[in-house]
Amino acid sequence: MKIAVLGSGVVGQTIGTKLVELGHDVKMGSRTATNAKAAEWAGKAGTRASHGTFADAAAFGELVFNCTGGMVSLDALRMAGAQNLAGKILIDISNPLDFSKGFPPTLSVCNDDSVGEQIQREFPDAKVVKTLNTVNAILMINPSILPGEHDLFMSGNDADAKAMVRKILTEWFGWKIVIDLGDITTARGTEQLLPIWVRLMGLFKSPQFNFHIVRPATA
Amino acid sequence: MKIAVLGSGVVGQTIGTKLVELGHDVKMGSRTATNAKAAEWAGKAGTRASHGTFADAAAFGELVFNCTGGMVSLDALRMAGAQNLAGKILIDISNPLDFSKGFPPTLSVCNDDSVGEQIQREFPDAKVVKTLNTVNAILMINPSILPGEHDLFMSGNDADAKAMVRKILTEWFGWKIVIDLGDITTARGTEQLLPIWVRLMGLFKSPQFNFHIVRPATA
Repeated sequence: MKIAVLGSGVVGQTIGTKLVELGHDVKMGSRTATNAKAAEWAGKAGTRASHGTFADAAAFGELVFNCTGGMVSLDALRMAGAQNLAGKILIDISNPLDFSKGFPPTLSVCNDDSVGEQIQREFPDAKVVKTLNTVNAILMINPSILPGEHDLFMSGNDADAKAMVRKILTEWFGWKIVIDLGDITTARGTEQLLPIWVRLMGLFKSPQFNFHIVRPATA
Repeated sequence: MKIAVLGSGVVGQTIGTKLVELGHDVKMGSRTATNAKAAEWAGKAGTRASHGTFADAAAFGELVFNCTGGMVSLDALRMAGAQNLAGKILIDISNPLDFSKGFPPTLSVCNDDSVGEQIQREFPDAKVVKTLNTVNAILMINPSILPGEHDLFMSGNDADAKAMVRKILTEWFGWKIVIDLGDITTARGTEQLLPIWVRLMGLFKSPQFNFHIVRPATA
């Protein structure tokens, strides 16, 4: 499958490399066609990896991963172009973490809105599915490095898109539990997990942890 | 021990009854000395149970539980009186859930502040410890109704107060895992768990669930 990965940071590189390993053709998109990190990644990741602008990548991909930071995601997606996103599943991994005032970060949008919703509103023809934003990049594609049961969440308005994303998360990335929270407004809930996530990371001195929702044993 | 329980709703009644059963003397505080729910509770809960105004209860208690709603907690605590809270551990269970615009609720304070911090700022001589706000009332005092490991969080500025609260949570209420997130600003993280909590409750059609933080197995 042809897949766009928007963003050349740790998340984009980790997801991109995994997708290439799975046999997909991946184009990493950046602000410029000559982004050094994207070029280096494409050079290392194999013949199925390439890079270009956000628009190049989005035009190439049948499926799009938004791996840009939540504060710049709308800008990046505008550069990708609404026509290049229309009709496609857009997996949004971003979080609106604002470190401009230091640690702990605040959220640049929260409570009655979310980045997931902002993206869906601005690109109504894209099928936005928010997921993977509650775990560290390594865990995203290696959930089994944590023992036992632990969970991913998913938010989106399109049932078919969520079914496809569930397949990607479980069959491609190895997730066992994916909780469909509902429509894209439920992204408020997962983006607002970040404030405790950031504190737990500080406490544990490691980003390798995850949430599990414990329910009564079914008799 | 003499304990004040501020608030006569489900949380206050559940905590109050448990404390009486444990052999403590509990005064439930309400806006008025003649609150019907508080009177009914005191009548049923046994001779160690009594009720009165917020101020009556706070004056009585050596330890204070804030079981009022987060949107009215500051008001209730002002009625309780700073002099009646000074030097005491104040266990804050409140959440700033605002249902005024319907479902899902928003938070009346979040992101760069929290109810826990508001209370600590307004009552600097109280030792505010935020905890129990991430679980349903029944679970607060019956954690074993959920199988396996699941967690409580705790936020507060005073180490001795947190040590005492940990004792209360583990020895009195039966909690096995209590994660000390840090100072009272970390209450932002647990109060912002409510948006996903509310959605999970809707999805599961039950409030009987809890968060567990899964970490790598220690080799």
